[in-house]
Amino acid sequence: MTHPRIRPLLAMACMLATAASATAAAADRDDGAMLGFSRTAATAQQSLEQRFDAQLDPAELRGWLKQMASQPNQVGSPHDKANAEFMLAKFREWGWDAHIETFSVLYPTPKKVALELLGPNPYTAALHEPAVAGDTTSDLAGVLPPYNVYGADGDVSAPLVYANYGMPDDYKELARRGIDVRGKIVITRYGGGWRGLKPKLAQEHGAIGCLIYSDPRDDGYAQGETYPQGGWRPAQGVQRGSVADMQLYPGDPLTPGIGSTPGAKRLALKDAKTILKIPVLPISYADATPLLQALRGPTAPASWRGALPLTYRVGPSASKVHLTVLSDWSQKPVYDVIAMLKGATAPDQWVVRGNHHDGWTFGAWDPLSGNVTLMAEAKAIGGLVKQGWRPQRTLVYASWDGEEPGLLGSTEWAEAHASELQQKAVLYLNSDTNGRGFLDAGGSHSLQHLVNQAADGVTDPETHVSVRERLRAHMLVDGSSKDAKPEAKAIAKLAAEGGDVPIQALGSGSDYSAFLEHLGIASLNLGFGGEDDDAGIYHSRYDSFDHYARFGDPDFGYGVALAKVAGHIMLRTADAEVLPLRFGDFSDTLDRYVGELHKLVDDTRKATEQQHKLLDSHAFALDADPTRPVAAPARDSDMPAIDLAPLDQAAKRLRQSAQAYQAAYARHAAGPDLPAARQQQLNQLIGSMEQTLTDPAGLPGRNWFKHFIYAPGMLTGYGVKTVPGVREAIEARRWDEANHYAALTAKVLDRYRAQLDRLTMLLDKQS
Amino acid sequence: MTHPRIRPLLAMACMLATAASATAAAADRDDGAMLGFSRTAATAQQSLEQRFDAQLDPAELRGWLKQMASQPNQVGSPHDKANAEFMLAKFREWGWDAHIETFSVLYPTPKKVALELLGPNPYTAALHEPAVAGDTTSDLAGVLPPYNVYGADGDVSAPLVYANYGMPDDYKELARRGIDVRGKIVITRYGGGWRGLKPKLAQEHGAIGCLIYSDPRDDGYAQGETYPQGGWRPAQGVQRGSVADMQLYPGDPLTPGIGSTPGAKRLALKDAKTILKIPVLPISYADATPLLQALRGPTAPASWRGALPLTYRVGPSASKVHLTVLSDWSQKPVYDVIAMLKGATAPDQWVVRGNHHDGWTFGAWDPLSGNVTLMAEAKAIGGLVKQGWRPQRTLVYASWDGEEPGLLGSTEWAEAHASELQQKAVLYLNSDTNGRGFLDAGGSHSLQHLVNQAADGVTDPETHVSVRERLRAHMLVDGSSKDAKPEAKAIAKLAAEGGDVPIQALGSGSDYSAFLEHLGIASLNLGFGGEDDDAGIYHSRYDSFDHYARFGDPDFGYGVALAKVAGHIMLRTADAEVLPLRFGDFSDTLDRYVGELHKLVDDTRKATEQQHKLLDSHAFALDADPTRPVAAPARDSDMPAIDLAPLDQAAKRLRQSAQAYQAAYARHAAGPDLPAARQQQLNQLIGSMEQTLTDPAGLPGRNWFKHFIYAPGMLTGYGVKTVPGVREAIEARRWDEANHYAALTAKVLDRYRAQLDRLTMLLDKQS
Repeated sequence: MTHPRIRPLLAMACMLATAASATAAAADRDDGAMLGFSRTAATAQQSLEQRFDAQLDPAELRGWLKQMASQPNQVGSPHDKANAEFMLAKFREWGWDAHIETFSVLYPTPKKVALELLGPNPYTAALHEPAVAGDTTSDLAGVLPPYNVYGADGDVSAPLVYANYGMPDDYKELARRGIDVRGKIVITRYGGGWRGLKPKLAQEHGAIGCLIYSDPRDDGYAQGETYPQGGWRPAQGVQRGSVADMQLYPGDPLTPGIGSTPGAKRLALKDAKTILKIPVLPISYADATPLLQALRGPTAPASWRGALPLTYRVGPSASKVHLTVLSDWSQKPVYDVIAMLKGATAPDQWVVRGNHHDGWTFGAWDPLSGNVTLMAEAKAIGGLVKQGWRPQRTLVYASWDGEEPGLLGSTEWAEAHASELQQKAVLYLNSDTNGRGFLDAGGSHSLQHLVNQAADGVTDPETHVSVRERLRAHMLVDGSSKDAKPEAKAIAKLAAEGGDVPIQALGSGSDYSAFLEHLGIASLNLGFGGEDDDAGIYHSRYDSFDHYARFGDPDFGYGVALAKVAGHIMLRTADAEVLPLRFGDFSDTLDRYVGELHKLVDDTRKATEQQHKLLDSHAFALDADPTRPVAAPARDSDMPAIDLAPLDQAAKRLRQSAQAYQAAYARHAAGPDLPAARQQQLNQLIGSMEQTLTDPAGLPGRNWFKHFIYAPGMLTGYGVKTVPGVREAIEARRWDEANHYAALTAKVLDRYRAQLDRLTMLLDKQS
Repeated sequence: MTHPRIRPLLAMACMLATAASATAAAADRDDGAMLGFSRTAATAQQSLEQRFDAQLDPAELRGWLKQMASQPNQVGSPHDKANAEFMLAKFREWGWDAHIETFSVLYPTPKKVALELLGPNPYTAALHEPAVAGDTTSDLAGVLPPYNVYGADGDVSAPLVYANYGMPDDYKELARRGIDVRGKIVITRYGGGWRGLKPKLAQEHGAIGCLIYSDPRDDGYAQGETYPQGGWRPAQGVQRGSVADMQLYPGDPLTPGIGSTPGAKRLALKDAKTILKIPVLPISYADATPLLQALRGPTAPASWRGALPLTYRVGPSASKVHLTVLSDWSQKPVYDVIAMLKGATAPDQWVVRGNHHDGWTFGAWDPLSGNVTLMAEAKAIGGLVKQGWRPQRTLVYASWDGEEPGLLGSTEWAEAHASELQQKAVLYLNSDTNGRGFLDAGGSHSLQHLVNQAADGVTDPETHVSVRERLRAHMLVDGSSKDAKPEAKAIAKLAAEGGDVPIQALGSGSDYSAFLEHLGIASLNLGFGGEDDDAGIYHSRYDSFDHYARFGDPDFGYGVALAKVAGHIMLRTADAEVLPLRFGDFSDTLDRYVGELHKLVDDTRKATEQQHKLLDSHAFALDADPTRPVAAPARDSDMPAIDLAPLDQAAKRLRQSAQAYQAAYARHAAGPDLPAARQQQLNQLIGSMEQTLTDPAGLPGRNWFKHFIYAPGMLTGYGVKTVPGVREAIEARRWDEANHYAALTAKVLDRYRAQLDRLTMLLDKQS
């Protein structure tokens, strides 16, 4: 489900200028030794990793991908179940204790979708993705027609309004042009923010239906040759996808917070808050063009214009558009494949790995390119076991079902096993789509050094430097371009310090959400990308083996590279004497986030003052062209003092505690091993550190989300908001809430610090 | 010729952050009194202006425009001559001493132009602008086929390469993609820099031909509905224009520096440095589309992509393109209409006003919309004379011919009368295209306060505030948008100070060049625009009365507004007791420019260091996608110390002298009148102040340009470069030249300061 092309940008939103000094500090901390291992153990671990690597065979990844992408594999399809059973057999063959865990979820599927333009120049949308030459699966039956799951049923006719990306600022621009979407059908284009926000915001503004089309500027011919000549989206290609309000909670809309087991108590459909009230339909630009041509009214703002050969207007259209969406709202099964390898000395510490196996059509890119790397890891680990190795901690490899509609398989499993996971899970490592390019690593920042050490030990297939150094080069070049965004410049500055490269904070968009944001388990999301052309077929019928083999990772070199980076992290976490987390990196990152919040407050205040000045001087009215009237913006609320002092102090205290832990860890590393009992106690506490960043009260208006540092943005969807309670309150100008959550978040950080101090004591205590 | 839509941007390039304090200083200087007048004289002047305004009749402007745009009026056309004679008769009828001054200039006109794509999918370009419904002149004969005057004759066949806007950075991007244009035909799109630079740079890079097309993103359907439904460029519309190398010298290519009178010594054609050596042709996007579709090679960088429904590639094309341009290189006559009104007390001080009358086709927008305001002023002034008024100084009203091919009429006249003009001319006020919107004022900054006072006294037809306050609102809103450029923010900051709004520095693009940049006469360029749609028909067959009456200035309210602003400035300059220049405004502006140069040096040094770091770490190579290789950029030269201290000191001395003059002027204004002789001596010196900013040696490589503060950029064309000797040397990394011209410019500024001190003495000397 995750969209590689949009992830980096979103992630960059959590970088800052004060960063450089922080990394310098981190560099000081890095003695080059393998984190969590004594020198002797580290040597053994490296040879283990070499034996692991030796078993990775790109031909096998290719074979599994071709096989699993040979038929449509969306939730409820025969091949989806077949793929689960295929993996079950494989895991068992490789020596894992595996089973399939089934949940029953609400998963509507389209019974009738129709779209037509009425009036003098009527047009009936094809809503069909034709077979294309050379794509051998593109003519197969069993693919669901393009739709957005969890939109409402409806049969509506109304004039059309174009709302650009359909994000909040777009509605402000419409309002300034006197355009009201109440009672209208809104057409938006993909991009600029998460898909699900588009119909949600349209609904909140009073629209009765929503269309989402793929403009060729964003992933079609403007980007490159279209499929099958090139990899980009053809005229009839459509992006399917979920529009459930996953910012409230992901998973089965009827069972928030609990596993959707047979007996589970389910909400009535009408009470499911994550399901839309209006119909929504994704369409191709071939079908969108006649609709856009029917628009009247003001010319669209310059930044709203796509690459279609027409004058983009905001509307409304003179003729009405007629939209019909009817679905089968029955329950469907999802099949999670769970494979375990019991730990020798710490069986009750789990190291969990996941990737989903359900696709929207054939799912070659999304998700199978990532899923086959997980399979390759599992097979190689099985091979190590056959060679006599046993992990110290328990390894759990999971292939989730139902990720596409709303992280269903992973969320229901995590909810069903919540207390056990909070007791046992020390890491969740996720992957999803994978392709050629650069390592894209996000997650808990206490894991940043572990990721860097692993990335430093794996060679990039194209450049033959380490994947970390290639990523560093990418960050440096990205941040150096004349028109680089401040975030890209900040990242480049961090990368230029040498040592560790920053990892991103996680929002949502793949299966880590329940583990990180609901249960507070330290998590990572890894994948390669940036050189591939997946955007053009994302969630369309053309997400096929043939496309992937041409434009994804033709020799599966990046599949193997991901298996190495992820596999090494799993093995090190399984075998480390001291769990390989480094809390100073979290502290450094937190300092940056707090710095960002101060800047956000200052910038918001400046912008507010400026806007008020302009309004008071009637500048907007005087500037406006009377023949193309654009009204002044609505007056922003006045801004009181925002008190971030509690955060400043908590961050400062945490910095001191992190330094103390680091010193104690260094003394320990140089000294004798800890007594087994104390080491176990230590690892127990390290394993639950991330959970202290959660609070049962959760985030404002969405208490499924318990993590106080990382969350998907209410108004960005996949995009992360760090220190969300405070940041989103400021952005939404809810001033009291901002002050309240600054204090609450400080309390949470103090709990983290308190447990960190206990770790330090344990390390220092004389044996 | 000037292009209103691109002018503001260019002008903003000469603003800076240190600006605010400067304006504050200016505000202190402003006692509100009419500059150059005693209180009693000011009252009389205001009533004179009221009587002037009362005679301005929009219906007359409309009538003249319709009449003069009723036939093609390019140089050498019958109607061009007829328009000159029409104005001659009018000026005489209005009581002016008028005559037509004729020059004979080299003006090539096309005999044969042809363009075809060869190979398997051949295409022959139409090169024809069809008649459109409702545009009554669009089917008239006598319009020259679309061409770029002063391109070379040629008949060439070669593969095609796309070079975006054809600016220097674009060639760097091509080189990084391994694309060499030697022996190729280059196709560029209009925009991004002056037209004439495109073939010049193509030629310098070894291309054998150049095409320039209008992409619909820049002035076609992407901007709005096309003509005749809307005002924007239709599919077959073509932008004509000059490609003479006017950065070397404007005017007749065969007579640099002297008037092209019958007996004048002329260069041989081959020795004319401003004429291209390769053929060039402007085409429509209808004709460009098949050529762009024929391109192969790498996908064009994102910022290169226009609004055509295709994948923009850089090429080269598999098939060759065949381009033919053959011209008639004979001499043609240009008819300058010169009307004078002798001054009563200072006949040897001339106040000069000009606008050109030649167009590319019908010239309704460009230039007649400005020319009819000049006529309206002349008629109203004639009316004042009939009422018994006489100007104290001599008024010269000129309507130039041959501006479009290269400022021919104004340049030849200025060169022919150089010494007399340097003795007598105290102001040159230019206008050109005029339309709805905001006052666009550029010129010598010693005239900034005069312009502001005049703009403050004229009401905007749409908003009914003063045109100055509307311009201020525009600057404030422009600079407040999220994605405002730093220059726009700097301007907004200046405007927010209240008091005077900044005027722009002048580069080139209209008839002020010879007066300001060659002779050093204080100059202004005025016009309204920004709400009109002229870009879409600029220099095409559709620059017609019908288009202007719909999309330009339908009720001619802005024609009258321009006549008022320009007329009041002319009348005040003609009658002022002390010529209305304020040197503190120049000093404030110079301080900003010097600040910009310091920033330019710092930024260039930082960028150089960063680029060297990236190259040394092989970051570009590691970042590159091996399947879409982009090589590292060429290594920038190392940067030595740049010594701007001479400029800093000269600017500081000037500031002190300007303050002293200001104080002396204030004492004078409060005290008794100066004795007539001293006043005359004073005005003589004020009138020649701007000339002290010139140096006979001129600018590096182009000594026709004598002004050391304002010049058109060698690599921007119309776009100004302030303190050009220093700024362009730094930008081109010619370090020794930068240091050399910093010292030279300081000397020039000291001459200005020395004469300013003499003014102060004259004001202070006891009578």
